[in-house]
Amino acid sequence: MTGSTPFHVYDTTLRDGAQQEGMNLSVSDKLAIAPLLDELGVGYIEGGWPGAVPKDTEFFKRAAKELDLRNAELAAFGATRKPGTRAVDDTQVRALIDSEAPVVTLVAKSDLRHVERALRTTGEENLAMITDTVELLVREGRRVVVDVEHFFDGFRFDPRYARAAVLTAFEAGAEVVCLCDTNGGMLPRFVTGIVQDVRAAVGPVPILGIHAHNDSGCAVANTIAAVEAGCAHVQGTVNGYGERTGNADLLAVVANLELKLGRPVLGAADGGAGAGGLGGLPEMTRIAHAISEITNISPFARQPYVGASAFAHKAGLHASAIRVDPDLYQHIDPLEVGNDMRMLVSDMAGRASIELKGRELGFDLSGRPDVLGRVTDRVKDAEANGYTYEAADASFELLLVEEVEGRRPQYFTVESWRTIVERSGGRGTLAVAEATVKLSAGGERIVSTGEGNGPVNALDHALRQALVRVYPELETFELIDFKVRILDAMHGTDAVTRVLIETTDGGTAWSTVGVGPNLLEASWEALTDSAIWGLRRLGVPPR
Amino acid sequence: MTGSTPFHVYDTTLRDGAQQEGMNLSVSDKLAIAPLLDELGVGYIEGGWPGAVPKDTEFFKRAAKELDLRNAELAAFGATRKPGTRAVDDTQVRALIDSEAPVVTLVAKSDLRHVERALRTTGEENLAMITDTVELLVREGRRVVVDVEHFFDGFRFDPRYARAAVLTAFEAGAEVVCLCDTNGGMLPRFVTGIVQDVRAAVGPVPILGIHAHNDSGCAVANTIAAVEAGCAHVQGTVNGYGERTGNADLLAVVANLELKLGRPVLGAADGGAGAGGLGGLPEMTRIAHAISEITNISPFARQPYVGASAFAHKAGLHASAIRVDPDLYQHIDPLEVGNDMRMLVSDMAGRASIELKGRELGFDLSGRPDVLGRVTDRVKDAEANGYTYEAADASFELLLVEEVEGRRPQYFTVESWRTIVERSGGRGTLAVAEATVKLSAGGERIVSTGEGNGPVNALDHALRQALVRVYPELETFELIDFKVRILDAMHGTDAVTRVLIETTDGGTAWSTVGVGPNLLEASWEALTDSAIWGLRRLGVPPR
Repeated sequence: MTGSTPFHVYDTTLRDGAQQEGMNLSVSDKLAIAPLLDELGVGYIEGGWPGAVPKDTEFFKRAAKELDLRNAELAAFGATRKPGTRAVDDTQVRALIDSEAPVVTLVAKSDLRHVERALRTTGEENLAMITDTVELLVREGRRVVVDVEHFFDGFRFDPRYARAAVLTAFEAGAEVVCLCDTNGGMLPRFVTGIVQDVRAAVGPVPILGIHAHNDSGCAVANTIAAVEAGCAHVQGTVNGYGERTGNADLLAVVANLELKLGRPVLGAADGGAGAGGLGGLPEMTRIAHAISEITNISPFARQPYVGASAFAHKAGLHASAIRVDPDLYQHIDPLEVGNDMRMLVSDMAGRASIELKGRELGFDLSGRPDVLGRVTDRVKDAEANGYTYEAADASFELLLVEEVEGRRPQYFTVESWRTIVERSGGRGTLAVAEATVKLSAGGERIVSTGEGNGPVNALDHALRQALVRVYPELETFELIDFKVRILDAMHGTDAVTRVLIETTDGGTAWSTVGVGPNLLEASWEALTDSAIWGLRRLGVPPR
Repeated sequence: MTGSTPFHVYDTTLRDGAQQEGMNLSVSDKLAIAPLLDELGVGYIEGGWPGAVPKDTEFFKRAAKELDLRNAELAAFGATRKPGTRAVDDTQVRALIDSEAPVVTLVAKSDLRHVERALRTTGEENLAMITDTVELLVREGRRVVVDVEHFFDGFRFDPRYARAAVLTAFEAGAEVVCLCDTNGGMLPRFVTGIVQDVRAAVGPVPILGIHAHNDSGCAVANTIAAVEAGCAHVQGTVNGYGERTGNADLLAVVANLELKLGRPVLGAADGGAGAGGLGGLPEMTRIAHAISEITNISPFARQPYVGASAFAHKAGLHASAIRVDPDLYQHIDPLEVGNDMRMLVSDMAGRASIELKGRELGFDLSGRPDVLGRVTDRVKDAEANGYTYEAADASFELLLVEEVEGRRPQYFTVESWRTIVERSGGRGTLAVAEATVKLSAGGERIVSTGEGNGPVNALDHALRQALVRVYPELETFELIDFKVRILDAMHGTDAVTRVLIETTDGGTAWSTVGVGPNLLEASWEALTDSAIWGLRRLGVPPR
């Protein structure tokens, strides 16, 4: 909550987000994510469905002991009681009380078709289930949110019944009724009209919420539209995780509310984000990425505000002006959400963007038009031949070093290399790969053979083994990503192959590119560039 | 255009979409994507910036000869003339005319700050540049779209000047003025207000357009809001490709317009989608995925409408009800956009589409639930391990044959294979590749060695040479396409490699897939599948 007007930022990453295809969160994963959400400054963390999902029962048990949340309150998710019973006798409802979560969020039906066809009961009994369950939880001292499922579709089918479900929940003591676009098919205008109707029906005081899914690509906009029409409780998930197309991306929602609508919503009531060590928006990018490390779902580069590409500029058209006046080309200052502007080097790029990129890498080329011209020409030439530097900063930097210092650092001289891949059997047998590298470094001639599960892997091992004798600093380098692309594929295997690799030394990661008539020549170039860049960065002199 | 009210679906995948980080489209890529866009039924395809980007100049040259578009018109993108010159003397403008594109889209400034700080000219001269350039192009017989850049930001800064830019473009003869949210920071309500203002200023007739970026996560909603406020021209890109967070996803925009707002916008004026072989929405998912194969950018599973997860339901709360009444749990029928509902923990998944695909290949599986079940299981299993049959019909057919006939055709038995790639020298020297294959066919044991410019090429030669002695029918087979994809790239070279190859015998072309721990094992599987399918198709019996 912020100030005198309560506003709830309600995160459901751990419950509805976990419905995403391919996501499988353990109890420890959830216990690791919750403090990050708290640090961001959300007001509520929905942890799961205790009673229905054994893992979630355990989560609430451990959370009570292990979590020390500074701002957020934990919410347990569950359903209204079964038809034809009493809430006090319903074990599922009992488990919600037993979870000891201070907030309980109940899913309830508000679409008469769902009541009759899925729940197989009457509209009247469904309303009684809401009343009975909410009243019990309120008596037990819980704050209650009622998620009215399929609300917007239900409203379009029978507005009278949908409204009745909302009014019933408030009358029974619910603090919030959250209108859910469960199937995700709404557009903002539809949301605006329906929220305005409900707002008129319940009056100005009760807290209405919005829970949107992204099936029409409008979840963030639908959430904003609902807030503009009178909702003061937004549900969503970090990175937009969720079933099908996902839930509303809570990060984009919150950034839009704070930065575009001037409405501070993160952080504690007594001081907003920043108070009590809460991070707020400036920590958003870091927290988004940290959570994706835990969910093990690759971050989406184009994700609004926090994506790796969100403030990356490629257009040559704009590059010269960006240098003069970056604010003209970004909708916000990326630092406001903890992200960074990046310039991408590409064949559309002119001298201006190369100068900027150089500056980013620590080379001031502003007074050296000759070098700038040569680098620009070489980049254009190389990109015409299949290279791409926008995802290979380290290769670009070596090219820059070569033009600035007159030569490429000479850590070793290659004599020859060879790879062999052999499979001795039919279907089902595995092949073995081996590579031999001959090179000179540190005054000696080195012959090294490496094995691997494929020829590139073997080549990487052979090269590393050869070099590590002279450059022990290389010991910690490790290949972490490898991408292949066949360019101009119409010529079949005569096509040119481009390889991008990413290497880490445990701390820093860097990317290099290689191009050649086949995978191995391209990989060799990227592997050697990677070793050279890594050694140079550590300040190791050629031996 | 559709019916009497013109409505433009304007695709800029090949121009603005190509600004995406990591995307680098060759001329052949563009020539392969354009027919897919045409098949979808877009009205306009913006091909690039001839004159400024050499690749794009070549694209328009080749497009004029090689493309046979049934519905879409090609548009060339460019800029208004430079300050202080005449449009007729501007080489960039001349290149637009020379491209022979029937539609020319000019980017023009409408934000006075950009005019003064980036263009470094006066507001007046900028308007003169618009007039002069549009008039010249109209005299040359082109239909002109003016993209007013940074329009929404500009309008907020100085609405009078922003309006003047729009009016000037229409007065000079522009058919469309497209309002661009270049920095992507708008929310739908802002867009609605500004479009309504401009609509009032220009009157009801002139065609206004909308070009949105997704920096606030609202590009699709902003586009829809603009249409509702009076725009009749929407720009966007397939899969939402584009710089930073991308452009408005044209697929979601079009699906929302057709399915949510009841406004048919795809296809020709004389009959909408379906006319003249146009696919429309039911082909959308296939086309989206085909384009992502060409751009080599992994499809985003959560993408609205076309994503692999877009209609995937996790077993749980809804599972049993979904089976009874799927319409209650999906915002649209997935078949309307060529997608499929999937139950993530269920054996129902895929059977229908596999039965359909089987029928397409001449196998009637409707009365054979046992075979259908086994094929479905094998496909699911294989796809979980990295195979994809969508672009490899021949491999799928071999799998089907194996289950229907009880075994895979045995044209040969492999004993072993080996590839060697060797480079005897430093930078600049070329490697040589050689492969040896040992197999039995026609009662003999055959050892064959092939050379090539890379190991796959050499392996292909060795296999073909070995088999052609027993199966001379193979003589005409030729590899025409070869694609590599590293899956699960976080494990570096330990990742799984998928290879797709296309082979022709001069008449028919067929595609096969292979997956393995490295390039060579994956390629070997695809190469052998290709030989087997080709021989079987010709009716050649195993010898």
